[in-house]
Amino acid sequence: MGLTTRLDDYVSDRRKRVDRELERLLPHSDTPPGTIHAAMRHSVFAGGKRIRPILAIAAAEACGSPFGIEAPACALECVHTYSLIHDDLPALDNDDLRRGEPACHKAFGESTAILAGDALQTLAFQILATQDLPAETTAAMVAELATAGGTVDGMIGGQVADIEAEGYDPTDGQVEYIHRAKTAALIRASVRFGSLYAEAGTPNSMRHEALSQYGAKIGLAFQIVDDVLDVVSSSDALGKTAGKDASQSKATYPALYGIEGSRQRARECLGEALRALDGFDERAWGLRAIADLIVSRTS
Amino acid sequence: MGLTTRLDDYVSDRRKRVDRELERLLPHSDTPPGTIHAAMRHSVFAGGKRIRPILAIAAAEACGSPFGIEAPACALECVHTYSLIHDDLPALDNDDLRRGEPACHKAFGESTAILAGDALQTLAFQILATQDLPAETTAAMVAELATAGGTVDGMIGGQVADIEAEGYDPTDGQVEYIHRAKTAALIRASVRFGSLYAEAGTPNSMRHEALSQYGAKIGLAFQIVDDVLDVVSSSDALGKTAGKDASQSKATYPALYGIEGSRQRARECLGEALRALDGFDERAWGLRAIADLIVSRTS
Repeated sequence: MGLTTRLDDYVSDRRKRVDRELERLLPHSDTPPGTIHAAMRHSVFAGGKRIRPILAIAAAEACGSPFGIEAPACALECVHTYSLIHDDLPALDNDDLRRGEPACHKAFGESTAILAGDALQTLAFQILATQDLPAETTAAMVAELATAGGTVDGMIGGQVADIEAEGYDPTDGQVEYIHRAKTAALIRASVRFGSLYAEAGTPNSMRHEALSQYGAKIGLAFQIVDDVLDVVSSSDALGKTAGKDASQSKATYPALYGIEGSRQRARECLGEALRALDGFDERAWGLRAIADLIVSRTS
Repeated sequence: MGLTTRLDDYVSDRRKRVDRELERLLPHSDTPPGTIHAAMRHSVFAGGKRIRPILAIAAAEACGSPFGIEAPACALECVHTYSLIHDDLPALDNDDLRRGEPACHKAFGESTAILAGDALQTLAFQILATQDLPAETTAAMVAELATAGGTVDGMIGGQVADIEAEGYDPTDGQVEYIHRAKTAALIRASVRFGSLYAEAGTPNSMRHEALSQYGAKIGLAFQIVDDVLDVVSSSDALGKTAGKDASQSKATYPALYGIEGSRQRARECLGEALRALDGFDERAWGLRAIADLIVSRTS
């Protein structure tokens, strides 16, 4: 079996497990008040790649715990989706298209989209706290997710810095901060979920540190590739509006280093991520393959 | 010392402890990115009554643990404030005045207000998970806060039902659902925080149930009084725009039962709340006094 087929099968199997769990965890559209649940489901089930929960599963596998992390992994997807819904709002990026579907505010109106984003964040923490997990695991995952999603070096902080940098000539340091906070923080947390899960909230620190390093590097690579694709791809291929970064004068890697320089930087991150996994055995196969996939993806 | 003075002193002391803790827990405005932290602080420190954290402290006192719940209690205030920021947005209630100050979106713009609300929700869970609490307490409080703030019988669910009911003749059941979910759920959770804290996440169920009943009833009374004040008070006295419910055809108690009927219903809730505390000793003095205060308040 070729590498691509093995990776396709790997990703497809984990994605199915994640989707099944999301289906179970999200309230049904006929649970009142139905509108909000329909809006949450619209955005969660609009064909996301599930990179973050799959990374959590792959990291748990690398630590020898291949099953059972699916539900907490879905909390990562809920936070990611809430951030997309709010990011697409007219007051923020004002994007009408997401994952190839109308953005939440286009399909359900602005007020429902704001509340659906809020609700997905709430649900993420509710999921972490209501599974059959050791309390130490729950507490550690809540701290991890909230820190990665927060304002100080976390996702919201990155979004704010991103907005503030619009229209200015960005410095290396600003672009690095924005990417690290806006995207890499949550991807790093996804990977760290794996060791938190495998070791019940008090992970072996060397392994946890290695996974953190891996997560930070592929997180950065992920956002660099995202920025490159925004320049070189069509909206059709991306499932969202392409070319927005340049039109909004965003602080991106391509704006600073050009396309080829950015691709080079992404490959360097990939190398550093793979080296961080040196101490792991064959069970880290998934993490290694996903790192390649993140850098070589075309959508 | 008269009852009013004792109650004033009681509330003033607890509020100071809450404000001191909020000051410690909220990132400073000079922590980058500064705008978001300034916006979060603008709304949190705009003179809130701190009813929810004070209730958590009073409930912990009633359970024999008078000190140490301040930080988790602040998580309740963060969730409450995030909901106010988003509720005031143009796409929702479109209110320019809150707690006597410009609403967050008026002071900082809509995009920052959306992200500041998001960030206060994130911070609430981060606070719960990063204090020196037993992991069982953290896990139980996260579940409690997320459920009370969520879509199924929780705060967001109540907001959605509230919006959906605008302009229709509400039924008794709808108004009761909206009030229970929109306001009473978080107030009930605040009181339940007290027993979760005092008994490290696995509270004595009879006491916990009695506090839940007390919390549900004063929560309902709180919202009924809020609706009455919206009709009978001035914007100056309230620190927010008065008369909005009628102008937006909101599903309120006054719309259904009139002013006097609503006041009567609030007094009944007060009676039921106090009866739920029958099994508690003098240490529940704070809870009993706050219940009176909630029903007799004029702003």
